[in-house]
Amino acid sequence: MFENDELCSLRLRDGGPAVEVIDQTLLPHELTWVSLTTTEQFCHAISAMQVRGAPLIGVTAAFGLANALAQDATDAGLQIAHDALLATRPTAVNLRWALERVTDAVNPLPPESRAEAALACAIELRLADIANCERIGEHGLALLQQHTGKGRLNVMTHCNAGFLATVQWGTALAPIYKAQAAGLPIHVWVSETRPRNQGMNLTAWELQRAGVPCTVVADNSCGQLMQSGQVDCVIVGSDRTASNGDVCNKIGTYLKALAAQANAVPFYVALPESTIDWRCPDGASIPIEERGGEEVLSVAGRDGAGEVRSVILSPDGAVAANPAFDTTPSALVTALVTEHGVFEASSEGLAKLARHLGR
Amino acid sequence: MFENDELCSLRLRDGGPAVEVIDQTLLPHELTWVSLTTTEQFCHAISAMQVRGAPLIGVTAAFGLANALAQDATDAGLQIAHDALLATRPTAVNLRWALERVTDAVNPLPPESRAEAALACAIELRLADIANCERIGEHGLALLQQHTGKGRLNVMTHCNAGFLATVQWGTALAPIYKAQAAGLPIHVWVSETRPRNQGMNLTAWELQRAGVPCTVVADNSCGQLMQSGQVDCVIVGSDRTASNGDVCNKIGTYLKALAAQANAVPFYVALPESTIDWRCPDGASIPIEERGGEEVLSVAGRDGAGEVRSVILSPDGAVAANPAFDTTPSALVTALVTEHGVFEASSEGLAKLARHLGR
Repeated sequence: MFENDELCSLRLRDGGPAVEVIDQTLLPHELTWVSLTTTEQFCHAISAMQVRGAPLIGVTAAFGLANALAQDATDAGLQIAHDALLATRPTAVNLRWALERVTDAVNPLPPESRAEAALACAIELRLADIANCERIGEHGLALLQQHTGKGRLNVMTHCNAGFLATVQWGTALAPIYKAQAAGLPIHVWVSETRPRNQGMNLTAWELQRAGVPCTVVADNSCGQLMQSGQVDCVIVGSDRTASNGDVCNKIGTYLKALAAQANAVPFYVALPESTIDWRCPDGASIPIEERGGEEVLSVAGRDGAGEVRSVILSPDGAVAANPAFDTTPSALVTALVTEHGVFEASSEGLAKLARHLGR
Repeated sequence: MFENDELCSLRLRDGGPAVEVIDQTLLPHELTWVSLTTTEQFCHAISAMQVRGAPLIGVTAAFGLANALAQDATDAGLQIAHDALLATRPTAVNLRWALERVTDAVNPLPPESRAEAALACAIELRLADIANCERIGEHGLALLQQHTGKGRLNVMTHCNAGFLATVQWGTALAPIYKAQAAGLPIHVWVSETRPRNQGMNLTAWELQRAGVPCTVVADNSCGQLMQSGQVDCVIVGSDRTASNGDVCNKIGTYLKALAAQANAVPFYVALPESTIDWRCPDGASIPIEERGGEEVLSVAGRDGAGEVRSVILSPDGAVAANPAFDTTPSALVTALVTEHGVFEASSEGLAKLARHLGR
């Protein structure tokens, strides 16, 4: 399914450290690859959400740091680029994690060796992300297979945790791609994910591209679909998971988790280990990014002539609040699906994962 | 607050039975009154949602039937108009209720007396709606006053249950207008209410018009706002309430009720008695209207030049499902606020209301 570059979000340009990424702000209306060759471009790509999704943010930042070190590999240059990249988004822990991985790799080295080592580290992170996502897909497939046998297998997802949020495969969508490849009769409920519509714009787009049947629904519909028995399980990604299993993810995830619990629908969170913030005790400690209200009050789409236009939805003078994430308490999460296997969403479950990792 | 016609959704044309209504499909971008003078126009106004909101649908249908009888007052004419009006929307019980009220009033009469009697009945229903909503406002105000004393009083609502959903005052918004008039420091979280955006388009518009401070949020935000202690109570309307207290209302209401319960936020439903379907045993028996997917996949807004345009949000070839309502189990409802007082959302609570009504 992922043999070629068609289902991939970030590729190296001339061997790196410059890269090309899909400008996700233009999807689903236009598929455009943009080159990132300066620290400013890398920072802009993350903060303007040309790239988004915790794992992809991490990989992009790693290449951003490698790229900066190719120009200035001094301690000062390292610090400046590190801090600029870290400041682009506040919530996703993979950003800090990836920057630390590169920094730790180059810190002991003399400046003249740093650029090469940083690039090697970024490339390794990219390949590891692909491999980890594929393993998440395999572990998740085993869970999905438990829900088959009743005709169409209806999986609900939220936001985009597919190959556009990682490099390939995705986290929440990896089990879905594996299920499709295994011939399961899978169908995906794509919640549109207001206000930025990543479900409608990105998840529906990438599922279509991969040939997976899907139906877009308003976020508001998700309780009713579960009440009426039309959802076999929910799978979402995570932007940061606390060490007690609380899951921070795109705004609206919490509402789906509440509805899933109320209707006895399994609620899975798929995430690479890098998304776990071991230092974070619980969800209440995770800062919630507040984005601009204009994301709620206006939206872009194609007009009758196929031209992309932004239109204002609200009455003149309206104001909006726009928290970008919410926290789902671990008690609402059926299981965490990682590249290392399936774990209970609890302090005990994550302690078991930590032991597995030799932490 | 409601002394003039500025905050009103339906007014008589030349004494009736023809009426003028605000075309709510054009809000918030354009305020246009349309005349309804034929049965086709009345039916279209309801089915195309130029008028919406259970109480306003009922009043509009009553004038529609009176208008039809002014042209053909035979039994056959009555039946045809009744059936055409009843078929316009499947979920709101007030539609059937209002048509029955008019039918019962004219059925025993000779054809030549029917038009006048039907008009009198429709006018009475309109005035009763206004009076009932004002009483809902007074009973709801007493509840809101329990939540004051901590600075800003933050009330969350969903969809539109204001004067645009009734004739004046509204149901869920009536207590808010009463609170504003009483000088309470009220602030309203308006959830946008995808897919048709009645919160953003209608509730924000009418609250602004009445000078009530409000903030628009994505439906997805509502759990996070409650988790973070920013919501003192939720008040919504109802399209149909079963005799056990289950509440059918705009899609997404159920998710707010789940979040309210999880965060110990009171969840009130404001409704006129006419919204109660005494013959309906529970929410599972209420048919859920499935509307066209294009309501999810495209949206209208003002472009830079102020012109209203529809834009397509989704990738080419996307399909959508669009259930328009969901059911909130009575156990999630703190109280029902009616024109007859505040009742528990349960078979016992509604039995008490029935006794109060002498049913």
